Amino acid sequence: MATRNDLCNAIRALSMDAVQKANSGHPGAPMGMAEIAEVLWNHHLRHNPTNPNWADRDRFILSNGHGSMLIYSLLHLTGYDLPMDQIKTFRQLHSQCAGHPEYGYAPGIETTTGPLGQGITNAVGFAMAEKLLADQFNKPGHDIVDHYTYCFLGDGCLMEGVSHESCALAGTWGLGKLIAFWDDNGISIDGHIEGWYTDDTVKRFEAYGWHVQSVDGHDSAAISAAVDAAKKVTDKPSMICCKTIIGKGSPNKSGSHDCHGSALGDAEVAATRAAIGWNYPPFEIPADVYAGWDGKAKGAKLEGEWDAKFAAYAKAFPAEAAEFKRRMAGDLPANWKSATDAFIAATNEKAEGIATRKASQNAITALAPILPEFLGGSADLTGSNLTSAPSFKHVVAKEPGNYISYGVREFGMFAIMNGMALHGGLLPFGGTFHMFSDYAKNALRMAALMKQRTIAVLTHDSIGQGEDGPTHQPVENTSGLRYIPRMDVWRPGSSTETAVSWVAAVERKDGPSSLVLSRQNVAGIKHDTAHFDLIRKGGYVFSDVAGKADVIIIANGSELDLAVKAAAELNAAGTKVRVVSMPSTNVFDRQDQAYKDSVLTAGVKRVAVEAAHPDFWRKYVGLDGAVVGIDTFGESAPGGVLLKEFGFTVENVVKTVKSVL
Amino acid sequence: MATRNDLCNAIRALSMDAVQKANSGHPGAPMGMAEIAEVLWNHHLRHNPTNPNWADRDRFILSNGHGSMLIYSLLHLTGYDLPMDQIKTFRQLHSQCAGHPEYGYAPGIETTTGPLGQGITNAVGFAMAEKLLADQFNKPGHDIVDHYTYCFLGDGCLMEGVSHESCALAGTWGLGKLIAFWDDNGISIDGHIEGWYTDDTVKRFEAYGWHVQSVDGHDSAAISAAVDAAKKVTDKPSMICCKTIIGKGSPNKSGSHDCHGSALGDAEVAATRAAIGWNYPPFEIPADVYAGWDGKAKGAKLEGEWDAKFAAYAKAFPAEAAEFKRRMAGDLPANWKSATDAFIAATNEKAEGIATRKASQNAITALAPILPEFLGGSADLTGSNLTSAPSFKHVVAKEPGNYISYGVREFGMFAIMNGMALHGGLLPFGGTFHMFSDYAKNALRMAALMKQRTIAVLTHDSIGQGEDGPTHQPVENTSGLRYIPRMDVWRPGSSTETAVSWVAAVERKDGPSSLVLSRQNVAGIKHDTAHFDLIRKGGYVFSDVAGKADVIIIANGSELDLAVKAAAELNAAGTKVRVVSMPSTNVFDRQDQAYKDSVLTAGVKRVAVEAAHPDFWRKYVGLDGAVVGIDTFGESAPGGVLLKEFGFTVENVVKTVKSVL
Repeated sequence: MATRNDLCNAIRALSMDAVQKANSGHPGAPMGMAEIAEVLWNHHLRHNPTNPNWADRDRFILSNGHGSMLIYSLLHLTGYDLPMDQIKTFRQLHSQCAGHPEYGYAPGIETTTGPLGQGITNAVGFAMAEKLLADQFNKPGHDIVDHYTYCFLGDGCLMEGVSHESCALAGTWGLGKLIAFWDDNGISIDGHIEGWYTDDTVKRFEAYGWHVQSVDGHDSAAISAAVDAAKKVTDKPSMICCKTIIGKGSPNKSGSHDCHGSALGDAEVAATRAAIGWNYPPFEIPADVYAGWDGKAKGAKLEGEWDAKFAAYAKAFPAEAAEFKRRMAGDLPANWKSATDAFIAATNEKAEGIATRKASQNAITALAPILPEFLGGSADLTGSNLTSAPSFKHVVAKEPGNYISYGVREFGMFAIMNGMALHGGLLPFGGTFHMFSDYAKNALRMAALMKQRTIAVLTHDSIGQGEDGPTHQPVENTSGLRYIPRMDVWRPGSSTETAVSWVAAVERKDGPSSLVLSRQNVAGIKHDTAHFDLIRKGGYVFSDVAGKADVIIIANGSELDLAVKAAAELNAAGTKVRVVSMPSTNVFDRQDQAYKDSVLTAGVKRVAVEAAHPDFWRKYVGLDGAVVGIDTFGESAPGGVLLKEFGFTVENVVKTVKSVL
Repeated sequence: MATRNDLCNAIRALSMDAVQKANSGHPGAPMGMAEIAEVLWNHHLRHNPTNPNWADRDRFILSNGHGSMLIYSLLHLTGYDLPMDQIKTFRQLHSQCAGHPEYGYAPGIETTTGPLGQGITNAVGFAMAEKLLADQFNKPGHDIVDHYTYCFLGDGCLMEGVSHESCALAGTWGLGKLIAFWDDNGISIDGHIEGWYTDDTVKRFEAYGWHVQSVDGHDSAAISAAVDAAKKVTDKPSMICCKTIIGKGSPNKSGSHDCHGSALGDAEVAATRAAIGWNYPPFEIPADVYAGWDGKAKGAKLEGEWDAKFAAYAKAFPAEAAEFKRRMAGDLPANWKSATDAFIAATNEKAEGIATRKASQNAITALAPILPEFLGGSADLTGSNLTSAPSFKHVVAKEPGNYISYGVREFGMFAIMNGMALHGGLLPFGGTFHMFSDYAKNALRMAALMKQRTIAVLTHDSIGQGEDGPTHQPVENTSGLRYIPRMDVWRPGSSTETAVSWVAAVERKDGPSSLVLSRQNVAGIKHDTAHFDLIRKGGYVFSDVAGKADVIIIANGSELDLAVKAAAELNAAGTKVRVVSMPSTNVFDRQDQAYKDSVLTAGVKRVAVEAAHPDFWRKYVGLDGAVVGIDTFGESAPGGVLLKEFGFTVENVVKTVKSVL
């Protein structure tokens, strides 16, 4: 029978061999964390390798994602559908074993990690999701939501600012089922960390309200005891600080950054084999080692027990059980379409001339009661983003609810939301000033990469923001988000367009949406009801002329009204102007060519109007069109003054149209 | 004679009246921090209102920049050239008193603040600059660099992740002359902070190695004693936690978020006047209060003493004194032009086919010895970014030097660099993977807004990065940076272009540059020497045909070689192709129209090639051109495999060119 040491060495061997074969990767972390991983995966983690989607499985996140061979080794050894051929093709095109763990590539990968600090932040989201769902679904004697979230992380994660944001919140929220393991190996890419990283991490996490323990990361019994102790503390997240030797097992490179980010080399691989007594060729695992790791039977039993528990729950609470299944599947409620159709129609009937952030709040207020998975929030701008609604119960410290004041933590908020969306059962949205989507850019990108349904509510979207000045006025930001693959950016120009944008964002199952909204009022527009479907195409003919148009004005958001008014003036003077409203270029670009041609007819000159960087719009107006935009920073003054100062006037749009004819 | 209380109330009155007049702004912080401000500015801050540019002044940073009326009040009252008319036009167009303190608008504003967490991070940069310059210039008995950096910050700054990154570094670096004051008022925009912010801040900062004190923020004697104590601790930064009441003085709104971000209202302003006993109309300050604040005579005396000190230094060390003046003025060394011309010529002579990150390191290695103000660094990727050079002395914890391992702290690094550049005397550059410029986006934007000379070295610039996969492969990022007003993005395609980019970035005195560099080798290109000047125009005709071209291929970076090879193939087959190298679209866009027309001749079809999002290039190729780009996420595989997989081949460029003809 394989010893515990053999089991750990299987991780070491697979990791060093796969990295060696690829001649690329990070062997140090998997080799250093082998004991921690073995303790957790063989003795604590409740998972079922044959069903990676078991709703109540414990979640495992490798925040130091560069150590990806650790998780691939664990998945392979415990019996997930990740055959050795995939390990052998580590870091090669179309391998499930990508350079970093990619969500959706290999079974059992709960989230894509690699961008440091975001894995632990996702983990906070997973643990918070578990807590909130438990509050919503569990009944006395029926704990159908009851799992841990485990996270491995390294020094790099702890240095990143986002770890501060999320770990502070985890403490405030008292996430007792979050247990993190710090791989305290004293090494980062630039070398021994004492030169640039001297935090007292124990004290830091105690300051956040965590339960903190310190152990020898190669002492399996000590690690296991620490996990037991962590589980007993139910009102605080736990950090287990594990002192480890990076690349442990490598006689000449362990303990040094030489084994952090590159292959050990054939000679050192051989030396390591000898040193750890691993007498098997690369990618060969003896049967007793496989047997020692096999988690399939244990996992099936665990899931079976939960199935029985869920069956009892379903018997006692059939509606709740059905609702739990619906929400975990990410399906919308049965009355979704009728309710949202009615809301859109009613919104259009009112045709209010309000800020689109206010129209957004109207949408949130209408959707929240029919969408119990909705989980609202803001990075300390609730009253400015207008993200709350009467039906929400606000989370306050350890009290659960369905609206979160994340504090001034934009990056943390969006990366936590990613974790919640990945957990399932919740549909998170979060607000901040559009400008400060900058702080969170990479979390928004990660949502797109992982195809997660999260919604960013980005208000105060231009110089129309006004007095706060250039630090608070987006210029380049909307287009920066539009260029993220799979991100749908919406910048609606009316209450009705705002309502439709919200509905589209909620219905989108395979990616995030960003709603870019005005601080200031927009015109009250009563749309033709045919627009309801057209808005969902991202761009459409808002108003047209008889016969061939001389020019097309493309606009969106708060500038739609300028286009409408300029068109009226020009039409009256004999220039035939079509107005195209383009709330989402991303969605418009996905339409078929015939539709796109029907909106932007070839050969017709075009002028785009958006209070943002003009260059983006060249893709629609070409070299012979024109753009009314802003390519400098804004200023501090009332919004109306600024819009005029920077040329967002009917007069200037008219003049610009004339310039291209 | 005005009492201390009168002096504080002058701040309260000015702040509430200016916000009331603008009907916009944040009265709460200035009113709550009045005592702290009075103690610091009247009794500790060594500054000279009549010369805001005195080289050795103490620096003051208001990290909670929304409380801008606090600093405007202080500048006005102590005698800076900021007349009452400017206070009266707070938040109006072209006022020096913008909504947030804007660098360059009012005298005495050391940095633009408002994006939370960045002010304290800039402050760490200021304090580090002071320490490094003191190390470089001071001589026994001649401490010409010897000043404090003071920073006010609020809860929001402390919640932001970047405060973790920078404050941890400040502790590691032992910045004894950094003294921060936390406005501990328990309020943020969403309300009382206990629901989302429960850090033990004292413990947190002790964990960073700071000296931490707690005082009543309305007890002037206690505050002053804490500053004295902070000064005595010379090897640790100091945090003075000041318990305050937000909006203190307002009888009905103090202590609540009602006074955080909006005007008090006429009635409450009147009630506050009565409550604090301020019997003067708005914007009227009695003479004795002005007298109590006046810092001009004291400041002139302080600067005079320093002038004498500097004169003695100049006598003893004339070369060093001249060098200090040159560096603080931001001028380049006398031999700059000859040395860099020689370096560019030598680089071109070698025409090495190396990665542009390596070419960048060659440039750094050549420039560092002639540029003592150069301050290198990397966010823990020194060996990957290739940012170090033999002549650098590495900073290790408290040991000074001129190369910094910032740890895995991208945002912190660039925001610290902004502080260093603003301090003067240093020319900071910092490296990270291009992908993780995402984490630091807003600091790069702030450098542009403040016209600061910082240089971002962004390597691994595309899917050519290879095995690390989509989390590490920029797609939208280069164009996202190009759209930041005033940011110069360079993506050089050869060693020579890389050398010229570096020289241009260093010579640029009014803004930041981002150097976007390849991981993989590019072709060895020996340029025509005429190119040396042309490269500096951002885009130029790299190779041309006799007569009129049929098509122009625009390329840059690692794709320049594809364009050259495709052109050769096409030219051989009879299609006349001009190749335009476009290392910097930003710089090219600033050229005169005649030059731009000479490069991109009107009416000639165009194809752009860049391993990045294609839509950006529509501004040059129009609707009838084409772009070889990538609008999806990348994959994990060797870089060469990926470039081929995604169509970055000579064959595909040729095919694309043919498609537009």
